[in-house]
Amino acid sequence: MEEQKVFLPEKEIPRQWYNIQADLPNPLQPPLNPATGQPIGPEDLAKIFPMNLIEQEVSTERWINIPEEVLDKLLIYRPTPLHRARRLEEYLGTPARIYYKNESVSPAGSHKPNTAIAQAYYNKTFGIKRLCTETGAGQWGSALSLGCAMFGLECKVFMVRVSFNQKPYRRMMMNTWGAECVPSPSNETSFGRKMLEQDPECSGSLGIAISEAIEEAVTRDDARYSLGSVLNHVMLHQTIIGLEAQRQMEALGEYPDVVVGCVGGGSNFAGISFPFVRDKIYGKDCQVLAVEPTACPTLTRGPFSYDFGDTAATTPLLPMFTLGHDFMPKPIHAGGLRYHGMSPLVSQLLTDNLIEARAYGQLQSYEAGVIFSRTEGLICAPETNHAVAAVIEEARKAKEEGQQKTILFNLSGHGMLDLSGYDSYLNGELVDYVLPEEEIQRTVEVLKSYPKPKAGR
Amino acid sequence: MEEQKVFLPEKEIPRQWYNIQADLPNPLQPPLNPATGQPIGPEDLAKIFPMNLIEQEVSTERWINIPEEVLDKLLIYRPTPLHRARRLEEYLGTPARIYYKNESVSPAGSHKPNTAIAQAYYNKTFGIKRLCTETGAGQWGSALSLGCAMFGLECKVFMVRVSFNQKPYRRMMMNTWGAECVPSPSNETSFGRKMLEQDPECSGSLGIAISEAIEEAVTRDDARYSLGSVLNHVMLHQTIIGLEAQRQMEALGEYPDVVVGCVGGGSNFAGISFPFVRDKIYGKDCQVLAVEPTACPTLTRGPFSYDFGDTAATTPLLPMFTLGHDFMPKPIHAGGLRYHGMSPLVSQLLTDNLIEARAYGQLQSYEAGVIFSRTEGLICAPETNHAVAAVIEEARKAKEEGQQKTILFNLSGHGMLDLSGYDSYLNGELVDYVLPEEEIQRTVEVLKSYPKPKAGR
Repeated sequence: MEEQKVFLPEKEIPRQWYNIQADLPNPLQPPLNPATGQPIGPEDLAKIFPMNLIEQEVSTERWINIPEEVLDKLLIYRPTPLHRARRLEEYLGTPARIYYKNESVSPAGSHKPNTAIAQAYYNKTFGIKRLCTETGAGQWGSALSLGCAMFGLECKVFMVRVSFNQKPYRRMMMNTWGAECVPSPSNETSFGRKMLEQDPECSGSLGIAISEAIEEAVTRDDARYSLGSVLNHVMLHQTIIGLEAQRQMEALGEYPDVVVGCVGGGSNFAGISFPFVRDKIYGKDCQVLAVEPTACPTLTRGPFSYDFGDTAATTPLLPMFTLGHDFMPKPIHAGGLRYHGMSPLVSQLLTDNLIEARAYGQLQSYEAGVIFSRTEGLICAPETNHAVAAVIEEARKAKEEGQQKTILFNLSGHGMLDLSGYDSYLNGELVDYVLPEEEIQRTVEVLKSYPKPKAGR
Repeated sequence: MEEQKVFLPEKEIPRQWYNIQADLPNPLQPPLNPATGQPIGPEDLAKIFPMNLIEQEVSTERWINIPEEVLDKLLIYRPTPLHRARRLEEYLGTPARIYYKNESVSPAGSHKPNTAIAQAYYNKTFGIKRLCTETGAGQWGSALSLGCAMFGLECKVFMVRVSFNQKPYRRMMMNTWGAECVPSPSNETSFGRKMLEQDPECSGSLGIAISEAIEEAVTRDDARYSLGSVLNHVMLHQTIIGLEAQRQMEALGEYPDVVVGCVGGGSNFAGISFPFVRDKIYGKDCQVLAVEPTACPTLTRGPFSYDFGDTAATTPLLPMFTLGHDFMPKPIHAGGLRYHGMSPLVSQLLTDNLIEARAYGQLQSYEAGVIFSRTEGLICAPETNHAVAAVIEEARKAKEEGQQKTILFNLSGHGMLDLSGYDSYLNGELVDYVLPEEEIQRTVEVLKSYPKPKAGR
């Protein structure tokens, strides 16, 4: 019987996160104050984040110790298993060996708790009593609810109203973990009330929800805001995925030729890939592939520019690939990964040609997801399906070229609460959408007046 | 850092199922033909089940080899982890050590695929092309859809109409795995049409769905029916849970004083407990606890009698604890475990005092589930919460008595698709329901005319 998956024993769980800022060929460019155009200092963020996380955000230490209290909670579901997708290989008739890291086994069903637990801990030790955040479809809101339950923090989640109404299970999950979840725009913030005055039927957006969460966080001294992707400390916390995967691959005597992750804000991709990118910086040969939807092609078609992290333009300016902070993904896109911007770290790696980016339509992604579910059993999150689509393409290429190849991808989450997308796909109700070139050009025009980061493609 | 969970390496997965029929102090009494009152023979079931499974149903071999092809699919998610619930222990302040076997990591989110995969395999090797089954809330229907996808069988699921309408995600899950799922009563069987003629608004019942599935199965030579609980071969396939748990407990130097599982038809309870019941038969001291809802108190209050397995009275008579085959659980009961009867094997063990039964109300069960989710992270299936309630009670008793004690329970599934029950509980909309004594007495009266199995309480 051939081995199908590797469990890493608990005692071999990584004790440190890997901070790629220590190894970047070109250092990350700083966030800017939009009013002055000057780099912001830690104190500019002190009302939004606790100082211990701000320090982590700017640290260039290569290895950062995972606190025992964080490890203790991560061990609820970590180390996660590494699986060989042998049935998928057989179905494709490929000589490639396909491995996936299974982050769906967390209580929230995705990789998001890796940073939610860490953020809850750092806020707790800083004396914070309450965390506020936004959530779109609900993955991040439920992960933070779990993290806060683990450390006895209050948690308030502003959930985009259209998702709040369409996905009641996510709200119920947050409530079960003791969090409060309100539809955004809400009557509980002045920005929310303003939005509702303008349009009482307003269905909400991630940008509005972020603004409400930040507003609520900064009004209380013992409350802070928490973000589930994009920022450096979030990427840092996710590196435990790739560090575990490296040890598991090593146990199999394998090293990946290709590492694949889907990208929205960048956190699961960073998690699986940054430890391998480090090897690459030090001379190892490895292809690293970030996969996004054609409906939200930030890395493949967006300009590299300074831009706001939120639609309401209240955050510092971040150096990143972006489709413009007022970008609104089309409702016909059912595959997630809708964020207009991208982690500055992931963006920097792309400009430095250490990673590649590729975009797939949702039809090809869901097709890949259905193939995966019928061969490997697991029903992936729609986001994850983009990675699966790339893996299948790579495996077919290996077949055509008669080439032995080892592929590793991050199965970032399961799709138990996103089955309506599969249903629409199976019923032939989905269509592909490619962002028109005019929209890209419009963004490029708007961003001309913004500060430019030094390197670009 | 104290160990929190044990992964069993793949190569140590059990290669045989344990058949408790080999060790029963009193042999199981045979199913009877309702027309003749005589024991049925294998050929009486040949149109419903494939002969290889019928042979397994009546086998008294102690150890039955798990076919390599079945093991290969089980390895997608097995061995499942054994966790120590240390945070729950701390919350309760108990000296007891609490362990749980985590069956929620299967692609369908419960223990059900353990038998679905095996049944699909045996049907496949017998030349069957299509399996038909019924499902209530959808756990079993989705597990069989997965099993059939793994072996390339067609799968048709008759889903109780009220659940079909209320739980669309379950139907979508089955479709994703390639199965067909129709609301029952349907227009696709004569029994379904008859029901719809009588009441076009009929919301369905498990009994009607079983009848439709059997009718559809027997009309085609290459189709068979599949059942997800109650029968001996189903219990057999689930024993892999307890066999793995034994090895994992042994690795920790532990042996349980108490083994706990919730019971509906009996399969997850049998799975975790039968290997320990065997030890008990051979002299080991161990309390084995089956936990059911007060709204459907089959083991705690039902008579031990021959009764039909389905509401439409089309199956052979089975010797079991039963609330009567026309029993209808109250709609206010949101906790699952609604089956009127009980696995004959589990029933026999209770009459032989090898196991104990206990019933809990749904308020106590959901309270236990919420405590568990906020300490251990995982949101359990409502069914599983009954086991958690018993575990908490045992752990509190250990505290009062200042007694060291090792408790093991089966976390049979997660509650990601059953969150509306949690929501009702958290909103104070649930009430407890205890089946009135008159209903029990009415059942006892009705069953007086049925054949009596030899032993009773």
